[in-house]
Amino acid sequence: MEAEAPWPRNAWYLAAWHGEIGDKPLARTLLGERIVLFRGTGGAIAALEDRCCHRAAPLSMGTVAPDGLQCGYHGMIFAADGRCVSIPGQESIPPQARIRSYPVVERQEFVWIWMGDADKADASEIVEFPPKSARRGDSRQHGVVPIACNYVLLIDNLMDLTHIPFVHGNTIGGRAQMDLLGAKVDAERTARGVHFIRWTLGHTPPPFFVKILGLGPDTKIDRWQEFEYIAPMSVLQWSGGLESGRGAQQEREQAGALSLRLFHGATPETENSCFYFWMRARSLPDDPASAALAIKEMERVFAQDVAMLEGQNARLAATRARPLVDIKNDNLRLMARRTLDRMISSEHSQVRSGQ
Amino acid sequence: MEAEAPWPRNAWYLAAWHGEIGDKPLARTLLGERIVLFRGTGGAIAALEDRCCHRAAPLSMGTVAPDGLQCGYHGMIFAADGRCVSIPGQESIPPQARIRSYPVVERQEFVWIWMGDADKADASEIVEFPPKSARRGDSRQHGVVPIACNYVLLIDNLMDLTHIPFVHGNTIGGRAQMDLLGAKVDAERTARGVHFIRWTLGHTPPPFFVKILGLGPDTKIDRWQEFEYIAPMSVLQWSGGLESGRGAQQEREQAGALSLRLFHGATPETENSCFYFWMRARSLPDDPASAALAIKEMERVFAQDVAMLEGQNARLAATRARPLVDIKNDNLRLMARRTLDRMISSEHSQVRSGQ
Amino acid sequence: MEAEAPWPRNAWYLAAWHGEIGDKPLARTLLGERIVLFRGTGGAIAALEDRCCHRAAPLSMGTVAPDGLQCGYHGMIFAADGRCVSIPGQESIPPQARIRSYPVVERQEFVWIWMGDADKADASEIVEFPPKSARRGDSRQHGVVPIACNYVLLIDNLMDLTHIPFVHGNTIGGRAQMDLLGAKVDAERTARGVHFIRWTLGHTPPPFFVKILGLGPDTKIDRWQEFEYIAPMSVLQWSGGLESGRGAQQEREQAGALSLRLFHGATPETENSCFYFWMRARSLPDDPASAALAIKEMERVFAQDVAMLEGQNARLAATRARPLVDIKNDNLRLMARRTLDRMISSEHSQVRSGQ
Repeated sequence: MEAEAPWPRNAWYLAAWHGEIGDKPLARTLLGERIVLFRGTGGAIAALEDRCCHRAAPLSMGTVAPDGLQCGYHGMIFAADGRCVSIPGQESIPPQARIRSYPVVERQEFVWIWMGDADKADASEIVEFPPKSARRGDSRQHGVVPIACNYVLLIDNLMDLTHIPFVHGNTIGGRAQMDLLGAKVDAERTARGVHFIRWTLGHTPPPFFVKILGLGPDTKIDRWQEFEYIAPMSVLQWSGGLESGRGAQQEREQAGALSLRLFHGATPETENSCFYFWMRARSLPDDPASAALAIKEMERVFAQDVAMLEGQNARLAATRARPLVDIKNDNLRLMARRTLDRMISSEHSQVRSGQ
Repeated sequence: MEAEAPWPRNAWYLAAWHGEIGDKPLARTLLGERIVLFRGTGGAIAALEDRCCHRAAPLSMGTVAPDGLQCGYHGMIFAADGRCVSIPGQESIPPQARIRSYPVVERQEFVWIWMGDADKADASEIVEFPPKSARRGDSRQHGVVPIACNYVLLIDNLMDLTHIPFVHGNTIGGRAQMDLLGAKVDAERTARGVHFIRWTLGHTPPPFFVKILGLGPDTKIDRWQEFEYIAPMSVLQWSGGLESGRGAQQEREQAGALSLRLFHGATPETENSCFYFWMRARSLPDDPASAALAIKEMERVFAQDVAMLEGQNARLAATRARPLVDIKNDNLRLMARRTLDRMISSEHSQVRSGQ
Repeated sequence: MEAEAPWPRNAWYLAAWHGEIGDKPLARTLLGERIVLFRGTGGAIAALEDRCCHRAAPLSMGTVAPDGLQCGYHGMIFAADGRCVSIPGQESIPPQARIRSYPVVERQEFVWIWMGDADKADASEIVEFPPKSARRGDSRQHGVVPIACNYVLLIDNLMDLTHIPFVHGNTIGGRAQMDLLGAKVDAERTARGVHFIRWTLGHTPPPFFVKILGLGPDTKIDRWQEFEYIAPMSVLQWSGGLESGRGAQQEREQAGALSLRLFHGATPETENSCFYFWMRARSLPDDPASAALAIKEMERVFAQDVAMLEGQNARLAATRARPLVDIKNDNLRLMARRTLDRMISSEHSQVRSGQ
């Protein structure tokens, strides 16, 4: 049996945030390939392999020219479609002077890349965030964190509420959150992944909620945690809480609620590293001080996850051949994994049957 | 012919000094395996493989719980014998939810581990230091130094007096010590290793002896150097000197003598790295100032050995296939090596004959 | 077909500048082998393999003794020819106690090594710099820069004028230098390499020429660029310029000219690293301030090349199997490469036919 690829190729992956691609080209390894992203003088972003076909110089050391990206070594210029359009010192350009280009779509802050068969790239499949229904202005923050782990471990982490009391004991978790472990979660397969929501009613709020909402000592909340995995790399989160008795289940985004909408993306760099892209859409409370507090707390939470994911990846990589034991609370993670595995397998069958 | 292991497995190895294992678990790679050592709430030290059987998270990132070591990712708890005793969120624990545990013995400052067949572990074989006859109170110092060399090179170094004038020319050696090179050494095989002693009578003392004993300019000493190798990893040293004519050969530990008792341990980490554990037992002179001076000198001596051992290991590792030339002064080193080789071979024959 | 070596062995390589070899031995990896260079007490430089035949200790950690290089571990001494001449603690020296030695020639500041068959080493083949005709006193500067690239990429770079406007746009190049790209170059194969010269008449001088010669705003110059590659590793450069109309083509080194004579050497360290040795012979203007300015400018130029070469090497090493596309301006580089390839092939044929 032939080995399967570690990731699907026929899919849109988040390559960068738009602000990362300024005057200078950006070098980034994605799905094991070194790419250069640049914004042409016309404003459109393009992605090429980061290797001049002449002498293999990294094009990311070059500069943006009116006709494309100009190699910094001998000045050859490559258009957005990968064709060489100028060779200093000679008139004719041989047809083999071209490099691979990749379809790219810039949508709001997101720069998406398609690294599989170009003729299968369909921009209508690109994940939308925030959803149209929740879009209110441009008050969004985002970031990218390189993590030394396989991207699937990050998806696992995001689709798993049950690590919160342990990894995030002193941030969003806390041992008071142990009821998460046995809680009922409504989960369902979707066309492209998994969706789940969990309500905890009459819940003692974690310290962060108390602080940001200014809650009294005995206030209970109704808390929701809603996640959607869209294979291969996106997780949309909507979570929050409202004082019990105010009807959160009917209307979550009331004044006085904490409502947090997040995008999480896990783009493979290599088999043992990935980029974690996050975005926080406009949330409640929406004053600048609360937003700043929320971002700061999220960064502490991310740092806890990163430490665990990198530790886990190192142990896994050193012990690949040895078995692991699934537990009951792996169900959401396993639902997501199965979606991803099907996507990878189906791509392989197509390759095998010549499609 | 099958390749032999680089170390015996059925042996006690020094894993740590007791003080290294406090409130937090200690991760350490020993004999090529990643181990976590922790002190349970009952006070006993245990050693487990540093990999949760659920998702391979490093247990060394976890915390000590009343029932064992709790994984920091999803909270599973492993008892000292490796059995999983708690899975948050589920009642029953599947029998395969267990990890490898290793016999551990804590004896004074020493924490010993057995990484071979657990049913062969016999604590009565553990090396004793200081010997009962020399035990006077608890005035001992110890340390551990990671060295980027195979552990056998460190044993070689300890069983070899003839490097002292060269490596330690400006510390315990000095070119005045060249008489070490042709000196007679009484050496014998023992049940578990090699023992040797060497007396140099009417000897010009090295600078360190002069300083610590406050000797006059022309004072000669009778100097002894006694070493015992106990395979696979321990070397016991008793060395010192006393003014000539005071009968050192009859009674070494007289007032006015310099008498130094050391334990040296070389525990393999990988094939190209080891931990050097050292202990200084109560020695003479035994006032705190002399002890501090002796420790400081030892640290300078160790640093000289470490530099040479790491240089040697790098050259050896890059030139494995090429021959080396033994010299006459290798005899003690070779006696120790033969003991170790027999121990490794015998373990392999047992494996081959199914014992 | 058997793989060819990445470099010829039967050739003189620049191993070091003489001042690098002082009281202490110098360890250096050349052509993939770890060498120790030392200056004996008689003043002659010798080169040995950096590995004692006893226990593989690096001899570069040893010290220079009257009879040779003394190992820092057990004191064995090796003469310049590799024979062991002293083993502390024993009288007789076994014949196998010897290590490899390499022919070395010190000539002015250059220390040359021959790492192939010693009986083929012919010192008359050593490259001379500066040429006798240009030798005026000892006002020379030199340096060595380690570069993480294959040495051939550095030769490529030196034999290629057409990267100057791109890599050195803000130093010796400048986009005003684009006429370099289509310029006529007189090139010819020589017995041991390639020679080329290029004259640009009535040329707008680059900023560095203007500055160092104090030229007026509209002054034009006649500029020459002369390079000679001598396989496998040397490039001799003579370049400069003089105000147009003063007969530079008849006599280059007139007062008022900028005339720069450089030696460039590319010695392989490993397949992915080399040492770049450079020397500036006495040039014009020859006052100390101009020399200092020239050196400073050269260092900026080198840094630009180093960044590009290391980037190129990394991309090449990761994509070995993929094709490249030659362009017209590769002609000089390809002439040099062919000389080098012939040298490597011929060495291999000799090996195959038993010569």
